[in-house]
Amino acid sequence: MRAIDMPTIDHRGPTFQDLGKRVLAGIRTIFKTKNPVLIYPASGTGAWEAALVNTLSPGDLCLMYETGHFATLWKKLAERLGLRTEFIEGDWRHGADAKAIGERLQADTNHEIKAVCVVHNETSTGCVSPIKAVREAIGAAGHPALLLVDTISSLASIDYRHDEWGVDVTVGGSQKGLMLPPGLSFNAVSDKALKAQESAKLPRSYWAWDEMLAANENGFFTYTPATNLLYGLDAAIEMLHAEGLENVFARHQRHGAATRAAVEAWGLEVLCAEPTHHSGSLTAVLMPDRKGADALRKIILDRFDMSLGAGLSKVADQIFRIGHLGDFNDLTLVGTLGGVEMGLKAAGVAHKSGGVDAAMAVLGDTETASYRQAAE
Amino acid sequence: MRAIDMPTIDHRGPTFQDLGKRVLAGIRTIFKTKNPVLIYPASGTGAWEAALVNTLSPGDLCLMYETGHFATLWKKLAERLGLRTEFIEGDWRHGADAKAIGERLQADTNHEIKAVCVVHNETSTGCVSPIKAVREAIGAAGHPALLLVDTISSLASIDYRHDEWGVDVTVGGSQKGLMLPPGLSFNAVSDKALKAQESAKLPRSYWAWDEMLAANENGFFTYTPATNLLYGLDAAIEMLHAEGLENVFARHQRHGAATRAAVEAWGLEVLCAEPTHHSGSLTAVLMPDRKGADALRKIILDRFDMSLGAGLSKVADQIFRIGHLGDFNDLTLVGTLGGVEMGLKAAGVAHKSGGVDAAMAVLGDTETASYRQAAE
Amino acid sequence: MRAIDMPTIDHRGPTFQDLGKRVLAGIRTIFKTKNPVLIYPASGTGAWEAALVNTLSPGDLCLMYETGHFATLWKKLAERLGLRTEFIEGDWRHGADAKAIGERLQADTNHEIKAVCVVHNETSTGCVSPIKAVREAIGAAGHPALLLVDTISSLASIDYRHDEWGVDVTVGGSQKGLMLPPGLSFNAVSDKALKAQESAKLPRSYWAWDEMLAANENGFFTYTPATNLLYGLDAAIEMLHAEGLENVFARHQRHGAATRAAVEAWGLEVLCAEPTHHSGSLTAVLMPDRKGADALRKIILDRFDMSLGAGLSKVADQIFRIGHLGDFNDLTLVGTLGGVEMGLKAAGVAHKSGGVDAAMAVLGDTETASYRQAAE
Amino acid sequence: MRAIDMPTIDHRGPTFQDLGKRVLAGIRTIFKTKNPVLIYPASGTGAWEAALVNTLSPGDLCLMYETGHFATLWKKLAERLGLRTEFIEGDWRHGADAKAIGERLQADTNHEIKAVCVVHNETSTGCVSPIKAVREAIGAAGHPALLLVDTISSLASIDYRHDEWGVDVTVGGSQKGLMLPPGLSFNAVSDKALKAQESAKLPRSYWAWDEMLAANENGFFTYTPATNLLYGLDAAIEMLHAEGLENVFARHQRHGAATRAAVEAWGLEVLCAEPTHHSGSLTAVLMPDRKGADALRKIILDRFDMSLGAGLSKVADQIFRIGHLGDFNDLTLVGTLGGVEMGLKAAGVAHKSGGVDAAMAVLGDTETASYRQAAE
Repeated sequence: MRAIDMPTIDHRGPTFQDLGKRVLAGIRTIFKTKNPVLIYPASGTGAWEAALVNTLSPGDLCLMYETGHFATLWKKLAERLGLRTEFIEGDWRHGADAKAIGERLQADTNHEIKAVCVVHNETSTGCVSPIKAVREAIGAAGHPALLLVDTISSLASIDYRHDEWGVDVTVGGSQKGLMLPPGLSFNAVSDKALKAQESAKLPRSYWAWDEMLAANENGFFTYTPATNLLYGLDAAIEMLHAEGLENVFARHQRHGAATRAAVEAWGLEVLCAEPTHHSGSLTAVLMPDRKGADALRKIILDRFDMSLGAGLSKVADQIFRIGHLGDFNDLTLVGTLGGVEMGLKAAGVAHKSGGVDAAMAVLGDTETASYRQAAE
Repeated sequence: MRAIDMPTIDHRGPTFQDLGKRVLAGIRTIFKTKNPVLIYPASGTGAWEAALVNTLSPGDLCLMYETGHFATLWKKLAERLGLRTEFIEGDWRHGADAKAIGERLQADTNHEIKAVCVVHNETSTGCVSPIKAVREAIGAAGHPALLLVDTISSLASIDYRHDEWGVDVTVGGSQKGLMLPPGLSFNAVSDKALKAQESAKLPRSYWAWDEMLAANENGFFTYTPATNLLYGLDAAIEMLHAEGLENVFARHQRHGAATRAAVEAWGLEVLCAEPTHHSGSLTAVLMPDRKGADALRKIILDRFDMSLGAGLSKVADQIFRIGHLGDFNDLTLVGTLGGVEMGLKAAGVAHKSGGVDAAMAVLGDTETASYRQAAE
Repeated sequence: MRAIDMPTIDHRGPTFQDLGKRVLAGIRTIFKTKNPVLIYPASGTGAWEAALVNTLSPGDLCLMYETGHFATLWKKLAERLGLRTEFIEGDWRHGADAKAIGERLQADTNHEIKAVCVVHNETSTGCVSPIKAVREAIGAAGHPALLLVDTISSLASIDYRHDEWGVDVTVGGSQKGLMLPPGLSFNAVSDKALKAQESAKLPRSYWAWDEMLAANENGFFTYTPATNLLYGLDAAIEMLHAEGLENVFARHQRHGAATRAAVEAWGLEVLCAEPTHHSGSLTAVLMPDRKGADALRKIILDRFDMSLGAGLSKVADQIFRIGHLGDFNDLTLVGTLGGVEMGLKAAGVAHKSGGVDAAMAVLGDTETASYRQAAE
Repeated sequence: MRAIDMPTIDHRGPTFQDLGKRVLAGIRTIFKTKNPVLIYPASGTGAWEAALVNTLSPGDLCLMYETGHFATLWKKLAERLGLRTEFIEGDWRHGADAKAIGERLQADTNHEIKAVCVVHNETSTGCVSPIKAVREAIGAAGHPALLLVDTISSLASIDYRHDEWGVDVTVGGSQKGLMLPPGLSFNAVSDKALKAQESAKLPRSYWAWDEMLAANENGFFTYTPATNLLYGLDAAIEMLHAEGLENVFARHQRHGAATRAAVEAWGLEVLCAEPTHHSGSLTAVLMPDRKGADALRKIILDRFDMSLGAGLSKVADQIFRIGHLGDFNDLTLVGTLGGVEMGLKAAGVAHKSGGVDAAMAVLGDTETASYRQAAE
């Protein structure tokens, strides 16, 4: 029977402990790590900060890669915290270039660079960075820099392997692939990152790993966690494993492929210029002449009650972004693409029809759909 | 009609903006301030950190008052951030002593102390600090220190006036008087605090006021807010004003008085030794001989499915805490006290019966109940 | 503040009364009647029974029209209650034929027929009967028979006017246009029906109008109502008026037109053979060679997790039914039709592609979409 | 992954079938019968009607027992359906008198009486009828009458055994012991009742057992069931078995005993005058001088936001009723009784204090509480 609705001053009872242990173990399987994962009652930006303050000292140099708007925000955040940053410039149409990172590290003979920061799935562009290749480039350079990766919009949507790929800190959030409201964020850590923490001198308390990891060992948290979101997290982890993580990834890949087929049929261009960097969770589309995206978005919102992502900063009004992540199935995608196609027409944007048909040809293909049968 | 369940990459639409403006304005009425209030997607500990990093520089000295466990935790947090702290020791049975604070400040002739930190309602003891008197003591000492106050367990339960009392930063949280799940926390700020921010040198980004306040002016946030909790906050503010804040405070006062009447009838002692410091949101009770509280709590949890607050650190096992805050009415309190009285008996704790009767005498008194009629 | 969760033996308090009065008044606006509407805690079949037992006597003759499966079920129900029935046979591809009804009534010179029963929107076929014409035919025949109409799947989706069209009893349900779970059903009544009740001799108690109408005058019910569904009904009525009933009807008409455009593009045939009888809430589609519908439905369910309506009894396996009613927008329809088109291909059903495109041409047309702007 | 929110015209899919089979099997365990139980989308009054129309013919004589208001309503319902009734008068302070029933049946030598109708737990009085004794009296009289029993407010709260006690039709509802909203009701049937159905001549369709039982064999229903309530029923059955039905009964017995101890301490009188007939799910209390109950109820509602049951018809204003059934624990009961005690004082009703104390003495008693330990 449900407990009486009495005030619970103390959230340290055995029931909570069971939940804590379960989600702290379960979240590791999502990051594919055997090491601990920190769970913060904060949005993803907080986990960006946590990754930096636990591993670095004032004035340390971070090599960051300009994949797009969010990489730029992370760089600004690092600078506000008193870190020095160096940006490898990008064109916002590719993921990070592992070769360029490797070359820069080889040039850094006295190991001034302390961390390499890369965004896995750049939400502003729909380009995925090749994390494994980045780690190999660091290794080939024989450089001791830590590798910090943002998976806020790829975790549980796009294949990611914290341990296997040798990432030191992976930053994640609750509101995309985990299908939860915003309010939880994560740091998956390597042994090397835990070691770095011991000498890292940036001041930290809320974000500090040490005390939290100690409390986590018993399923508890050092301060009030976002209890209700933890219940949601518990359910989300179970759902992801019920479908199978590989099936979830395959589904997103199919949806990305179908979306790109639609874009091609419309005669438009996908922002991401490198096929191996295409994102399974969102697709950014270039407007003809690189303008008018916001007018199009407004028409689609007004006419079809659907909100598309805007182009941010450098690509403002030049692109619109189609999300296909989280709790999303084939027919939702068909409806979404139908809304875009009708919107292109209503807005008078030059395009060819047939995008939805092209997407359906991909979605209806038995081969790509085979994951469903396997999963059930 | 409900919008289709399409992915919303961009949380910057006009609907969200309306909500943002409404809660950012509404939360000011709860703190009783005309100045801005920062809303963090974080638990209360984060807002403690925010209050410090936005106003202070490394090595700054904070005068803190040991009201109990949570004041001690705040002190440790300040130290981890690189601040120096000085503790005025307390006996955990009183709120802060304004006179002692004033004397210490008068002795600080070269104004080494940069901030005075006080917990309004100390959750570990049920003692309320006289914030107005503390501010007056600072003023009488002619001292420029900032006054930072924690209202995490008193906001929207116990009378509090950020502007009128001249507080510089008030720290609050969502999960007590606002009746929401944990996951939102607040900084209400004074002009003086905003000024201090300009020269404060502790590194900060997630907690930084400046960019967030700029975005807040248009109803937006600089990073993903805890959207669903903001909807809850909107509703909570409306509910509090529907009942009337003064009525809410009076209700808690009545419940505190009724609980103390029960404790007295049981022949037990309330931890808070100063009547003017009694809390309206929770009451801590001393065990006879200061031991056995945890055994009692376990019996009450097992037998009556009710979780009482534990004694923390210095008073571990010596006390138990009865919460009476949030969505709580007279009959819930009678049930709660009934559970304690039956538990005392079941646990073989020396006590007199009649506690529930004594509480009912207070609750049934028409005078104290008059707020209800006024409110309806 | 929320009331304590105390047991409510008596559901006759003032709060409930307010709700009762509000929904009893509001539901009249949905049926477009100034007369009372009975609200039963029962599914639609119960309201069929109620319409008959309150107005007829054992052995009375009912003239019913075979529009499809549900008309046939209503006829069987009438017979089980001890009524005599006469069926005007139909081909399941049209609504009721007002002329045929008129001719039969003119032949019934001694007025043996006591009631004419017609289904407005036949859920098994997607054909709408012309109720106004039926009433005119009864009038032209100078026949005193009552007109009983089933609107279970048309209420709040397809234009319907109880008073203006002179219907005597309109039967409705909660689970279609009102977007609620099943469990509520309705009888809207005319003065003539209320008069008939006085001499109707079929035994009745649960369904009896007289006592319920007396209690309803004060907002109460003679026995326990489905309280939680009444709260939902209250909200549903408000939502319908917020969008505007005429806009709701227009939306369904557009969705019906778009669906039929898709069917035509596929080279398939809509079951409803009479354009003026096309339904705005669902479209039944004939399979080539009238077979294989169930295999198709299974493939669509397995592959795309979408459940289409089956062909019932006479048209089993010959048709599938596409619902487009309730909380349904343009993009949901595009997704639905996409699922059908991909399913036709996957199942190897002979068809042409281009159905979704054809539907989008209808949906994207500014003229037909104009209601949105008007509504907002 | 959650299915897309597509319209489900057809509620006959395999998922629904699983649920149907599960609840149709599970509900038998609650009635303690191996025979089928019919589940109606209707409130309890509908199941009263169903019990009669399936087993009886127009003009059949029912022997009913006047336990209180609800027995009287059932009698009126029977009369409206064209049955003849005979009432054994009661004083509203006892359950049915098995001896009186037996004597009447013995006098009915030509077996004119076709059914004996008894209310198990009379909600208007808090008296429980001895069903086993009634069945034995029927048997001792050698009379073939059916035994129909109403358990609307006792099912899943008070010990009841359909098969063992030889009941022919048991009527139940969803909104009391099953802790669901109103909207489902039940008929548990014996073989004898099923046999009687074959010759019973009252017209019936919605309530007819035969077609529904045939459909139920495959987990389906002949017409739209109250789907969402069936999901709730599934959960409720699981919860009841998790606690253990015997533990649920014992808990209600304890709460009844504690409530009566409070009434006695107040110096008031429990309406039920026969100790073996005391109800575990509700207790009716006589006002001193048998008046003023409604004024008292109003004060308690206004002051403490708690709604007590009113005295109905013959005992209007003479009694108030305290419910203690469904999702109710010891502390909720203490709060409830506290509200009554404070209300008695506020209303100036002559009484002694100490009722809550007396109830706590019962609730705190380890012996009676032992079920908890056993259950966990």
